[in-house]
Amino acid sequence: MRFLRVDMGGGRVVPCILDADGSARDISTLVPDLGPGTLGDALIERIAATEITSLPLVDLTGRRIDAPMAQPGTIWCIGLNYSDHAAEAGMAIPKEPILFNKAAVTYCGPNDPILMSPQMTKLDWEVELGIVIGKAALNVSPDAALEYVFGYVLVNDVSERAWQMEREGQWVKGKSFPNFCPVGPHLVTRQAVDDVQSLSMWLDVNGERKQTGSTSRMIFDVATIVSYMSEFTRLETGDLICTGTPPGVGAGMKPPQWLKAGDCVTLGIEGLDEQAQTVEPLA
Amino acid sequence: MRFLRVDMGGGRVVPCILDADGSARDISTLVPDLGPGTLGDALIERIAATEITSLPLVDLTGRRIDAPMAQPGTIWCIGLNYSDHAAEAGMAIPKEPILFNKAAVTYCGPNDPILMSPQMTKLDWEVELGIVIGKAALNVSPDAALEYVFGYVLVNDVSERAWQMEREGQWVKGKSFPNFCPVGPHLVTRQAVDDVQSLSMWLDVNGERKQTGSTSRMIFDVATIVSYMSEFTRLETGDLICTGTPPGVGAGMKPPQWLKAGDCVTLGIEGLDEQAQTVEPLA
Repeated sequence: MRFLRVDMGGGRVVPCILDADGSARDISTLVPDLGPGTLGDALIERIAATEITSLPLVDLTGRRIDAPMAQPGTIWCIGLNYSDHAAEAGMAIPKEPILFNKAAVTYCGPNDPILMSPQMTKLDWEVELGIVIGKAALNVSPDAALEYVFGYVLVNDVSERAWQMEREGQWVKGKSFPNFCPVGPHLVTRQAVDDVQSLSMWLDVNGERKQTGSTSRMIFDVATIVSYMSEFTRLETGDLICTGTPPGVGAGMKPPQWLKAGDCVTLGIEGLDEQAQTVEPLA
Repeated sequence: MRFLRVDMGGGRVVPCILDADGSARDISTLVPDLGPGTLGDALIERIAATEITSLPLVDLTGRRIDAPMAQPGTIWCIGLNYSDHAAEAGMAIPKEPILFNKAAVTYCGPNDPILMSPQMTKLDWEVELGIVIGKAALNVSPDAALEYVFGYVLVNDVSERAWQMEREGQWVKGKSFPNFCPVGPHLVTRQAVDDVQSLSMWLDVNGERKQTGSTSRMIFDVATIVSYMSEFTRLETGDLICTGTPPGVGAGMKPPQWLKAGDCVTLGIEGLDEQAQTVEPLA
């Protein structure tokens, strides 16, 4: 199943499913919203028991697409999870997953603008596979871990490298500006993804290819990440885990390349559709 | 004004204010809950216009006290913000505030148990002053910063040091277990705190004093923290910022001291009341 959420204006967001023809159908009679309180196997069963074509069509023309699930309780990220990205960053390959967070305020729709404040000097991109948790996970084994995954999303882990790497302390400082976490457009259930560890991924800036990768190159795969994290925290339904980026970020270029006002960033992951953001300066 | 939230059972939490006699009065007719959607100057004005003694008394006998505001959007922490704590941790005094996060699942009431998993080996305590944000703050000056503060809370920034310091990566790994962020019992408005930079603070384990400090010893004061953070993110109403701990944590003892099952941790900050937690092993 492929879900999305459509912004109907006036603060109203409608949860939808894509039908066999790729048209959006309103599922708000089945579930008030997609998110921490509602994702899970019971939702999938309820929808499976419904005749999708009987649900109202939603015309997407001119509509803003919101993130495909409501605000996660916690946005997690895995650092340096592709060996070739670790190399371009000049960092050692991690022996176990590196965890950090993005602030809640980063969360936005897939095509919302990347906001650039006047203090930013090293604004960068990161195409990533996002894991969406489907039930609470504490101390789960790698073998059982995928049962706790509801599905997958496309994420751009937007980063200000000067704040992340050159200011005192932890990476979250360069990962937390508003709109630094575009998510979607689709939330695809794990059952609808053939092999999550062989999805191609890409990112362009102004139409020029910057990142090319595959989830097959992850150092720690999805099951390992979920199991590992469940030792240190309880993952909750609706939590988002951004799983790291392949090579080709601006910081890894020689010389480095940074986003500037007006740049257009487009990105995609096989089976998870695409995003497009414009860099918008703040006064 | 001093707020608290009382757990009435069955999932019902009642927002309250303390009256002049220190008795809890139910304010749910004035505000559905205290939290991200409702904190702010308008709430203070509405309550100021109300005859507090006309509100229903709430009997606290046998009641669990919840955190004094609903789940924050983001839980922020400042690292190494007391020079004598930085010294005992063997870390350099930071040149600018270090930021990290605690996962949403850490958030709990002031007297809820500290949960100890079988994998923990270096479970530690940290008494901290918590800032609660009262309106969205982006690029605010230090002079204006306190206007964005709704009030203050007592926090225990519970930490598993082996996970924080000895496993790969960022501190959040040792800061994010369920119940690692007891908050409250009171949320005290900034107007009700005479001088937030001269509050004494303490923490005992099994009745033995471990931490003694004062907010006067912060390296970066409340106004500096709020202004500084507002460059890197937009602080949101209801966000919690834990401002660092004074010396006396277990990791700083020679030899180090760690919490064990059954230990009782009590802590307090002048004017913000006290907490008591028991360390409870998970099977």
